[in-house]
Amino acid sequence: MTERKIILGMALTDGYGTLPGAWRAPNVDPTNYAKVEANIRYAQAAERGGFSFVFTPDFPAVRGGLESGTVSNIMDPLMEAAVISQATRNIGFVLTGSTTFQEPFNTARQFKTLDIMSHGRAGWNAVTTSDQLVAANYGKPVADRAERYQRAHESIQIVQSLWGSWEKDAWIHDQESGRFLDTSKLQPVNLGGEHVASRGPLALPPSEQGQPVVFTSGGPSPHLLEIAGRYASGFITEVWTIDEARASRAALRRAAEAAGRNPDDVKFIVGILTTVTPTVREGLDRRMSMSGEVIEARLPHLGAMIGVPIQPQHIDTPLTTEQLAIAHANPQDPRSEIALEVAREGWSPRDILAHGVIDYHPVTVGPGSVHADHMQEWFEAGAADGFWMSPDVYEDGVDAFVDEVVPILRERGLYPEEYVGSTLRENLGVPEQYGLGEWMK
Amino acid sequence: MTERKIILGMALTDGYGTLPGAWRAPNVDPTNYAKVEANIRYAQAAERGGFSFVFTPDFPAVRGGLESGTVSNIMDPLMEAAVISQATRNIGFVLTGSTTFQEPFNTARQFKTLDIMSHGRAGWNAVTTSDQLVAANYGKPVADRAERYQRAHESIQIVQSLWGSWEKDAWIHDQESGRFLDTSKLQPVNLGGEHVASRGPLALPPSEQGQPVVFTSGGPSPHLLEIAGRYASGFITEVWTIDEARASRAALRRAAEAAGRNPDDVKFIVGILTTVTPTVREGLDRRMSMSGEVIEARLPHLGAMIGVPIQPQHIDTPLTTEQLAIAHANPQDPRSEIALEVAREGWSPRDILAHGVIDYHPVTVGPGSVHADHMQEWFEAGAADGFWMSPDVYEDGVDAFVDEVVPILRERGLYPEEYVGSTLRENLGVPEQYGLGEWMK
Ligand SMILES: Cc1cc2nc3c(=O)[nH]c(=O)nc-3n(C[C@H](O)[C@H](O)[C@H](O)COP(=O)(O)O)c2cc1C
Ligand SMILES: Cc1cc2nc3c(=O)[nH]c(=O)nc-3n(C[C@H](O)[C@H](O)[C@H](O)COP(=O)(O)O)c2cc1C
Repeated sequence: MTERKIILGMALTDGYGTLPGAWRAPNVDPTNYAKVEANIRYAQAAERGGFSFVFTPDFPAVRGGLESGTVSNIMDPLMEAAVISQATRNIGFVLTGSTTFQEPFNTARQFKTLDIMSHGRAGWNAVTTSDQLVAANYGKPVADRAERYQRAHESIQIVQSLWGSWEKDAWIHDQESGRFLDTSKLQPVNLGGEHVASRGPLALPPSEQGQPVVFTSGGPSPHLLEIAGRYASGFITEVWTIDEARASRAALRRAAEAAGRNPDDVKFIVGILTTVTPTVREGLDRRMSMSGEVIEARLPHLGAMIGVPIQPQHIDTPLTTEQLAIAHANPQDPRSEIALEVAREGWSPRDILAHGVIDYHPVTVGPGSVHADHMQEWFEAGAADGFWMSPDVYEDGVDAFVDEVVPILRERGLYPEEYVGSTLRENLGVPEQYGLGEWMK
Repeated sequence: MTERKIILGMALTDGYGTLPGAWRAPNVDPTNYAKVEANIRYAQAAERGGFSFVFTPDFPAVRGGLESGTVSNIMDPLMEAAVISQATRNIGFVLTGSTTFQEPFNTARQFKTLDIMSHGRAGWNAVTTSDQLVAANYGKPVADRAERYQRAHESIQIVQSLWGSWEKDAWIHDQESGRFLDTSKLQPVNLGGEHVASRGPLALPPSEQGQPVVFTSGGPSPHLLEIAGRYASGFITEVWTIDEARASRAALRRAAEAAGRNPDDVKFIVGILTTVTPTVREGLDRRMSMSGEVIEARLPHLGAMIGVPIQPQHIDTPLTTEQLAIAHANPQDPRSEIALEVAREGWSPRDILAHGVIDYHPVTVGPGSVHADHMQEWFEAGAADGFWMSPDVYEDGVDAFVDEVVPILRERGLYPEEYVGSTLRENLGVPEQYGLGEWMK
């Protein structure tokens, strides 16, 4: 039995980083948005750190003003991953593909092609996209949840069946005898649902890992847990507290068991946003210098989170003893507890905000040990099997993480010394898959 | 004014070549079908020969027995081209994408990504797929022609509008001032048709050629000529005789004029299948050795084409004077004239068939001059602006063409000495495109 180790993934997004001003950082090429070369470099840096995968969220629509750099409609993740796969050897590719707006046959074919080209490093993050602006790009209204999830079940079953339609030892390619394929091992799938259908087969051979790995992402709703429990080997999520995360992870494991699977075969991967610097102070300054007006604008929100109104002129004054005495976390927002904890450490409101307490994932700021401590605590509490990190600025933030955080995780025996293998399944620690999905058996 | 020159393209297909036994050739790796490395090599060889583009036909379905190697459901062309684009500098990528089965937003995004990654070398071959087996993979019946062409018009207009939705000088990315984009130059397209729709914009910047080049392919039906005349910069076709080709090319040029365009901006590209060998005899032997039972099986068909029944035991006996006297080309099949011409040269029926007279394009066999003569004749007769060649066996057939045919074309002043530029539009000799299609103006 192998000891359980932390799994690391890294988001690949717009070529800049999570801070609004990342594209303006002095060492950053402001045209990275349209440069696959930048993402190659970042993936290579993550590979140097033994990361199991890069992960591309995907909301293909313009969802905010682009005047100042809020970019969400990135280059096509599959096309980028195809290129990056040829410049890397071990790191996997977990790419978001919508079950709501993509055709299962296309999804099956493109991910399988990536899996073959990368020698077994592809993963599909199957999401039930409900974004209005994305829907508008496909000229469709957003269907209700029941329909989206029905279509998701159908889509994933078709995709997995197409992947499995060329069996492991079907390909003979014997030049001597002239036998190319054992056609009894390449069979149509003939699956038809209410929303999608495909005849198949998909005439592409298995990769070194058999088939791409299925992931999903979202919150722990019953619908999504059913998807994850039946089909997924990884669950990518956003969650702010250990308690929440433990509950979600336990629910995920129960869903896998309910589907007759080993719960260890579904990895629960939580997000963190990182700023790696020699000291916390330097980290906060770095974050502030690249946050534009976002920090000031969030001051009222911070006040609401901790139940203490804060005047703009007090943004640089730590909370008084009186203020701290009446402060209390807003139970509606799990981030409030973190904000309050940071406030109690004596930081000014500006510094509290620079800690990223209103960001969309927990933020870790400072020397390597801060990040390692955070992950160790979550991991050992059963709140996560792994983490997907998003650096503040890709250009130097990935290397800083690899050089300062990874060695500490290794010293503590929490992280593999090297890649377990060259396929995504090996590095995640999930079984190979050939042929039809387990749900078919 | 630049002198008119021949444009060359090369089909990229299954990694083997056009002969049924290509995958069994001694120098061929029989697993090339699933190796992007092979297609990289072939594209590089074509680039050495100054080819303007590689071209991927695409019928994603299993359309024949795979027992002995008839493969038609290749790896995804976009994914492969993404990889090949990073291993080449000048050659373009004309990739087939179906207007019947693909979503315009996906087509727009993936081709634009390729265009950016390749620095302006992408082209989209928009086809109105009507193949039953392909349709079944998408779980749909084949729509009638009227619907398919209506959808094609809508799809191409949406795709070109999405490509043009980010204008040429919209991207400011000024780190100093913090202005990322002039959002007045990134506008939604809001196009809705009967079959497809998209809001846009597509937030991807123009490439070095502005936008990908639109191609189409098929026969010269009024419906397809209207598509080609309005939107296409290239028309890829299969045609057996100069007369037919001249008529089709003239019809294409009239269609462009009718759409208010310069007819020189739509290139008419015809197919040839090549076997390059020191002598014709060696070429025929090479073809026979890799044709399996196909040649014998085609004997009755040959008899029907030239109006002379041929018994199997006479397959190696040239036609007698009496037979030649009664022989006549079947007017239903334009290939019959070519077959008759070859028969009159005194070849045996087996050799006539080895000349490829029943293949799906004209076949040229022998030393470089044979191929160059064929192309020169067609080109000078106004029957073609260029050729897309498919080698008998990729592994050595591309290099043979580049080494033996290209120098002769250059000597004769028919072919550019080097690449005109680094974009597909430059190498085709068609204008740059930014913003909306000409059909919008
Ligand atoms: C961490 C996380 C990542 C997600 N990534 C994507 C994504 O990349 N693309 C997408 O369309 N939806 C994404 N979603 C949204 C979900 O797929 C889903 O549409 C959304 O959570 C709505 O949930 P519902 O469908 O259960 O109502 C993500 C959600 C979460 C929590
Ligand atoms: C040279 C040539 C290449 C073609 N390539 C493709 C292709 O790669 N994929 C495809 O689906 N259809 C392809 N077609 C088929 C056409 O797109 C079209 O579906 C077919 O000619 C039927 O014509 P119609 O739609 O006018 O009835 C090709 C046709 C020709 C003649």
